Amino acid sequence: MIKEENIRRVEPYVPGEQPNGMDIIKLNTNESPFMPSDMVAIALASMTPDQMRKYPDPEASMLVETIAEYYGVDEDQVFVGVGSDDVLGMAFLTFFNSGKPILFPDVTYSFYDVWANLYKIPFKTIPLDNNFRIKVDDYNQENGGIVIANPNAPTGIELPLDAIEIIIKNNPDSLVIVDEAYIDFGRQTALGLINKYDNLLVVRTLSKSRALAGMRVGYAFGNKELIKAMKDIKYSYNSYTLSAAAIRAGVAAIRDDDYFKQLVKEIVDTREEAKVTLKKMGFDMTNSSTNFLFVTHESMSAKEIFEKLRERDIYVRYFNKPRIDNYLRITIGTKQQMRELYEALEEILAAK
Amino acid sequence: MIKEENIRRVEPYVPGEQPNGMDIIKLNTNESPFMPSDMVAIALASMTPDQMRKYPDPEASMLVETIAEYYGVDEDQVFVGVGSDDVLGMAFLTFFNSGKPILFPDVTYSFYDVWANLYKIPFKTIPLDNNFRIKVDDYNQENGGIVIANPNAPTGIELPLDAIEIIIKNNPDSLVIVDEAYIDFGRQTALGLINKYDNLLVVRTLSKSRALAGMRVGYAFGNKELIKAMKDIKYSYNSYTLSAAAIRAGVAAIRDDDYFKQLVKEIVDTREEAKVTLKKMGFDMTNSSTNFLFVTHESMSAKEIFEKLRERDIYVRYFNKPRIDNYLRITIGTKQQMRELYEALEEILAAK
Repeated sequence: MIKEENIRRVEPYVPGEQPNGMDIIKLNTNESPFMPSDMVAIALASMTPDQMRKYPDPEASMLVETIAEYYGVDEDQVFVGVGSDDVLGMAFLTFFNSGKPILFPDVTYSFYDVWANLYKIPFKTIPLDNNFRIKVDDYNQENGGIVIANPNAPTGIELPLDAIEIIIKNNPDSLVIVDEAYIDFGRQTALGLINKYDNLLVVRTLSKSRALAGMRVGYAFGNKELIKAMKDIKYSYNSYTLSAAAIRAGVAAIRDDDYFKQLVKEIVDTREEAKVTLKKMGFDMTNSSTNFLFVTHESMSAKEIFEKLRERDIYVRYFNKPRIDNYLRITIGTKQQMRELYEALEEILAAK
Repeated sequence: MIKEENIRRVEPYVPGEQPNGMDIIKLNTNESPFMPSDMVAIALASMTPDQMRKYPDPEASMLVETIAEYYGVDEDQVFVGVGSDDVLGMAFLTFFNSGKPILFPDVTYSFYDVWANLYKIPFKTIPLDNNFRIKVDDYNQENGGIVIANPNAPTGIELPLDAIEIIIKNNPDSLVIVDEAYIDFGRQTALGLINKYDNLLVVRTLSKSRALAGMRVGYAFGNKELIKAMKDIKYSYNSYTLSAAAIRAGVAAIRDDDYFKQLVKEIVDTREEAKVTLKKMGFDMTNSSTNFLFVTHESMSAKEIFEKLRERDIYVRYFNKPRIDNYLRITIGTKQQMRELYEALEEILAAK
């Protein structure tokens, strides 16, 4: 066997279960419960043999132009990748090379420490307060970069834009990544700040609000110098990361704006109803601005509820981690799925 | 602007031009001139909304099982990625961590030094002999890993399997990557050696012989310990690299074996004809075992031929690099495309 010293060893990220089956209610990976725009299926079905046999456009120009136009930014302020995980991974590799620790909350998207370990980037986690809120002043210390998910996951809490701006402003020497995977379900994007601050990268995905997790499309906005540096790294890794199919599917999903707005409205409405319903059942929760709720129950442990729901083929996410091991992350499903969830929870809690 | 020390700077890889236009003859990026199996289009058109909205299977099990069955290996001996570039990049990141230089030929696939630079892996290039052949004994020195493209690119020359085996056998402590992007057009794969040597990784792609460059599917074979280490790194970077569409397209392309064999035969026949025809025109060339030829002309410079072909909308690949700056790499096209190439070359050479 090759020498152990040759091999990079990591503790790999464990993604949420992807169970199959007709009767499963899957509220565990924050996918959209709705199908993507019909335009996506049409885009895939109308791919030509030439698009399949030739290498895709390495610039994915069609997608970059569509994103730039939709969001009103310049094309050279847009980076695209294979889901926001690819975009974030490239950003870590490109910008976190100072040797100083990067900062992110102790409770946040669980890939940040995985990437830091993968690329041997020192990091320091900053505790959220007792209500799972980010304390802005804590990010006022020497660092090699900052990563803030906003709204944060799995807490669902959105930090107001003025607080985000303070963090960016206080750290002009480091890159501040604002991971806005869930912003379409929230209030205020930091996108408007990219022309004001050249140390800001705003990362997005089509996986949640555009119902396109299966096609793997993510993107980022930033100052054109930042985007250029990321593109150089991307081209050094793989010139053709986005398939011709992913490019076309992404374009179709973004162009169908009416459908997108309808999906988001439906999920936000269902979320607000769910907050009321679950509170009546004895759940406490953060004020989520996302497509999921982060809940804890007054009398039954999260682990037990998780297991009992699973027995009923209802999958939610349970993290066996410090501070959050009595919480469940529940993705907002369709109204029908949520009704079935409420019924199951009532049974489970009544049987206690 | 963020501090320069934070930013990883690289000399990015420059992919071959991807010109668009109906009348272009594109022989510059080693794509297949033929369309992929009809089964691929059917697979894409029959994707369900659920496959689009949900995260893809992180294991890409359907694709892994199909590859394992087709090649007669175990599923845990197979790794899949976003084209062979992704697979190779992951292998570099996973296995080349000893601090000792990795070895590869001075004339070879131009991404190897790009990845080494990207990941700060020291490397040493080993000169091919005057006939562009790999000298096996040169790889008998201390190293942190070895990468051999076989057949090699852009030379097209295939090293016999017993020579490959000597390199693997002589270097039990390091990983030996055999990059077989073009092996389907050649003679002998090293795949059979993965059960004999636990330091061998064989890398493949669907982009060339399966006519599927646009969908981005690559794969690798190796000892299950090696595959496990690569998967851990892959899951640390991005759990869902292959889209649901890429997984399904890849399965369809591999299953249609008759069509695949027909494509390969047509390209190999056309290649052998091209060798004869181009020699008659005064070209000298290596004995390519790939879907391209590596040629030089007795009286006109490669650069001039490249430019004159380009004026006629015929694109071939010219590398402005030491040792090979008087060579052209010409992808084998359809018989009709090759006839048009010959006509253009005759005109160009006659006009001299």
